[in-house]
Amino acid sequence: MNSLEEKTLHSEEIFSGKIITLEIQDVELPNGKRAKREIVKHPGAVAILAVTDENKIVMVEQYRKALEKTIVEIPAGKLEKGEEPVNCARRELEEETGYVCESLELLTSFYTSPGFADEIVHVFLAKGLTKKENPAALDEDEFVNLEELTLAEAQQYVKEQKVYDAKTIYAVQYLQLQEALTAK
Amino acid sequence: MNSLEEKTLHSEEIFSGKIITLEIQDVELPNGKRAKREIVKHPGAVAILAVTDENKIVMVEQYRKALEKTIVEIPAGKLEKGEEPVNCARRELEEETGYVCESLELLTSFYTSPGFADEIVHVFLAKGLTKKENPAALDEDEFVNLEELTLAEAQQYVKEQKVYDAKTIYAVQYLQLQEALTAK
Repeated sequence: MNSLEEKTLHSEEIFSGKIITLEIQDVELPNGKRAKREIVKHPGAVAILAVTDENKIVMVEQYRKALEKTIVEIPAGKLEKGEEPVNCARRELEEETGYVCESLELLTSFYTSPGFADEIVHVFLAKGLTKKENPAALDEDEFVNLEELTLAEAQQYVKEQKVYDAKTIYAVQYLQLQEALTAK
Repeated sequence: MNSLEEKTLHSEEIFSGKIITLEIQDVELPNGKRAKREIVKHPGAVAILAVTDENKIVMVEQYRKALEKTIVEIPAGKLEKGEEPVNCARRELEEETGYVCESLELLTSFYTSPGFADEIVHVFLAKGLTKKENPAALDEDEFVNLEELTLAEAQQYVKEQKVYDAKTIYAVQYLQLQEALTAK
């Protein structure tokens, strides 16, 4: 059964930039009527929940122009063309934090905004962290401050809305769940 | 300290639609250099984790044109102009599922894609559900199938990527955490 499907009748590209492409689609609805869909295409991204041997969560403070504010997030970045998510995770972790890791495990993948965008985020757990002496550099338009937080501190950041985005709130809740399951 | 801020030098509106607006901003970076930012403006949204008296999670199956596939999500919808999130949650729950609820509690709010969009989602927990006889109708371009899942079924849906979006994966993990904390 897939009676919910919408058929594309016409698609127009409005904008194509460095990060996103905007398309307007005319679609046929399941009842035969027509509607317009505003669709943002995005290459996809990875995010890395990196936990140090001292059980600290590695986060980056970053100004987000879309929000006009600075928030604290787990390291993340866009997939380059043809790049495997796990390789992207390794690269972004090193660029944003200077850490390399022994293991990377995919925790989950999710679409961030299925109502208007195809962006998917793959969230990895990174363990066995060591600081690299000469890590790869950030993109030239990226500026971040490194923070290392205990789980309690991260939960406090969520409460204070310093941590305020889907992937990081998911990651903090993931660690809370692991802690609760271990304590059982 | 807010040395990470980016100053807007110029902003151009590329598109303004029913759901999103696209702006291209020229910004001054913390080091004085310039960059372009692609920014999607969105009115914000609510999502409702509605749990029945039989401990079933109310979900809706919906075709998402941006993904070109049907996924299963907790009920959600865009904020209307000036609408309080809690009122929007009540309205969307009724429109999408036919349920009204006794209580609504804000669980969290998060930005879905801070790298390019200002969309925020407010996630509510709805309890005390009863079916309404003549519920408010869906928008004319919305088509959904109702599903009611146990937590185990919802976790299975996450595994099978039928549940595949940030707010729903957060909501399922939230219930897993509550279960683990109760079992302690």
